[in-house]
Amino acid sequence: MVQVAVCGPGECSPEEAEAARAVGGLLARAGAVVVCGGYGGVMAAAAAGAREAGGTVVGVLSGRDRAGASPDLTVALPTGMGEARNAVIVRAADAVIVVGGSWGTLSELALAMRGGTPVVTLGGWRVVDASGAPVPGPVAAAGPADAVRLALRGR
Amino acid sequence: MVQVAVCGPGECSPEEAEAARAVGGLLARAGAVVVCGGYGGVMAAAAAGAREAGGTVVGVLSGRDRAGASPDLTVALPTGMGEARNAVIVRAADAVIVVGGSWGTLSELALAMRGGTPVVTLGGWRVVDASGAPVPGPVAAAGPADAVRLALRGR
Amino acid sequence: MVQVAVCGPGECSPEEAEAARAVGGLLARAGAVVVCGGYGGVMAAAAAGAREAGGTVVGVLSGRDRAGASPDLTVALPTGMGEARNAVIVRAADAVIVVGGSWGTLSELALAMRGGTPVVTLGGWRVVDASGAPVPGPVAAAGPADAVRLALRGR
Amino acid sequence: MVQVAVCGPGECSPEEAEAARAVGGLLARAGAVVVCGGYGGVMAAAAAGAREAGGTVVGVLSGRDRAGASPDLTVALPTGMGEARNAVIVRAADAVIVVGGSWGTLSELALAMRGGTPVVTLGGWRVVDASGAPVPGPVAAAGPADAVRLALRGR
Repeated sequence: MVQVAVCGPGECSPEEAEAARAVGGLLARAGAVVVCGGYGGVMAAAAAGAREAGGTVVGVLSGRDRAGASPDLTVALPTGMGEARNAVIVRAADAVIVVGGSWGTLSELALAMRGGTPVVTLGGWRVVDASGAPVPGPVAAAGPADAVRLALRGR
Repeated sequence: MVQVAVCGPGECSPEEAEAARAVGGLLARAGAVVVCGGYGGVMAAAAAGAREAGGTVVGVLSGRDRAGASPDLTVALPTGMGEARNAVIVRAADAVIVVGGSWGTLSELALAMRGGTPVVTLGGWRVVDASGAPVPGPVAAAGPADAVRLALRGR
Repeated sequence: MVQVAVCGPGECSPEEAEAARAVGGLLARAGAVVVCGGYGGVMAAAAAGAREAGGTVVGVLSGRDRAGASPDLTVALPTGMGEARNAVIVRAADAVIVVGGSWGTLSELALAMRGGTPVVTLGGWRVVDASGAPVPGPVAAAGPADAVRLALRGR
Repeated sequence: MVQVAVCGPGECSPEEAEAARAVGGLLARAGAVVVCGGYGGVMAAAAAGAREAGGTVVGVLSGRDRAGASPDLTVALPTGMGEARNAVIVRAADAVIVVGGSWGTLSELALAMRGGTPVVTLGGWRVVDASGAPVPGPVAAAGPADAVRLALRGR
C-alpha cells in the first residue's frame, strides 16, 4: 500500500484548490491512500478529489475531536496533539506533495525532508540559503499529473 | 463514521485472538472503522476479523516505519512516537474495546477513561482502589457480541 | 543527573498532598530532579516540596500555554499535546513515584511499566489480573522516605 | 520565568557554534531558561554558553534515552517521540532563536511561526514566496546580542 500525504494551507486560492483536487484524484486512481491534515483548503480539496475517484483518505487532525473535519475523509483521526500531528502526517507518508505555502505546510515539508521522505512541490514557498540559492531536496512539479508521477516514482 | 479502537497485547492466548477476531468482524459488519495499534496478537486478530468482513482497519504504529505491521491493515500509519501513539489511538476512537491485559493495553484503557471515551473490556486486567473495590468506568462484556453492542450503544 | 517523576491526581486528599510534598522534598535533598505534570494536587505538592528544598522541578504541561501551572516549577514546558504528554513525563524519568489514583495517573504508571521504568506506589489504585491477583511490577512503598529510597535504589 | 528556545543544526560551523554559545550565555545572564534539542552542534554550544553563565538548560531529546545528549544540560528530557519533539521545543518557548540552517531547524522555525511564537534568526536558511520575496515573520538579528535583545523584547 502506497500512502502519499498532500499538504497545504487551510485557506487557499481557487487555483490551489483545483490543483489539490486533481492531485487527490490522480493519487486515488493510482491506488495510493491519501493522508492529509483533514481540515479545509488544500486538505479538503485533496480529500474531495480522492473521494470522488473512489479512494481512501485519512485525515490526521490536530484537534481533540472531529470538529471542522472535511466531510470527504474516509477516516478522521483526532490526535489532540496540536501541531505535533504534522510529524505524524509526514511519517505516515511514502512521499509528500505540497500545494501552496503556509507556516504549517512548511513545517510538514521540513519534517519530511528531515526524515528522508521525498517532497514534491506545486507552487508555494521556497527555501533558500544565505546566498539566495535554493536548498536542494524538494522537487518542483510542473502540474498535478507531474507531481503525482514524481511522488509515485519507483513505487 | 463510527470508529472503535480494539486494544490488547501484542502476544495473546488463542482465546483472546479468537475474541479479538470476532470483535473485528462484528465491528466491520456494523459499519464501524477499526482502529488499533497495528502489530501482532490482539491487534492483528482484530484487523484480520475486520478485513475478512470487508471493513476498514487503521493501524497506528509506534515505529518509524511499517516493520512488523499486520498484513490486514487498510492503512498503516507509522508515527515514530513510541508509546505516545497510544494516546492517538484512543483519541481517534468513539469507544474502546479492550481484549486481554498488558501494560501497554492498560495505558490505553486509562487514557481513554481520562479522555471521557467509553471503555468495554473482554477479560484482561482490572483496576481496584485501595479497598479492593473495582474503580468504576470500564464496562465488562459477556463476549464479543456484547462488547460490540456496548461499544456502539447510542451511535 | 537522576530524574524522578512524581505522578498523581490533580485533585487529591490532604494526606496525599502531604505525602507528595514529602516525596518532592526528599528527592530534591537527594539531588534528583523532579519531573511532574505541572498542575495542581499531587503535582503541585511535589513541586512545592522540591522547591522548598532548593531542588529543580520540571512541569510537562498538557496545555498549549502555562495556564494553571503550579507556581513552584523551575521550568514549565507546555506541550500542547494533551494527554500524550503523559508518555513524555515517564520517558523522561529514571523512576516514577505514584501518589494516589486517577485515570491519568494510572496511564502514567502503565506507560512507565510498558517502557521498563521502575514504578513505586504510595497508596492509589492497584492492578489485578482476572483471578484477582496483583499484576507484578509496581512496588508499594511504606511511606515517602521508603518511596524515595526505592526509586533511587542502585542510582 | 522566560524560556527561549535556541534551535540549529546538530552539525554546524565554528562561527555558528560561537554565535550559539554567545546566545546561550546572554540568555542565561538575562535570567532566561534555555530550551533546546539537547544534542550536538548549535544545541550543545547554546547549552555550554548557558551553563558557563550559571543558567538553566533544558534539552528535549528525540530519543528514548539520554544517549548523545550534551553534557551541559541541566535537565535532559528523552521523549521517544522522534521529530515530533520539535513541536514540544517551540511550544515550550516564549521566543525562538534560530542559528544556522537544516531541515530539522526549519521545521522548528515553521512550527513556531505557525503557533504564534516570535522567531529571531542568526544566519541560516530563508523562506521566500513564489515571487522570491521573503515571507514576513522571522526577524533577522545582526548578532548574538541583537538576537537576545529581540527575543526578550517586551518581556
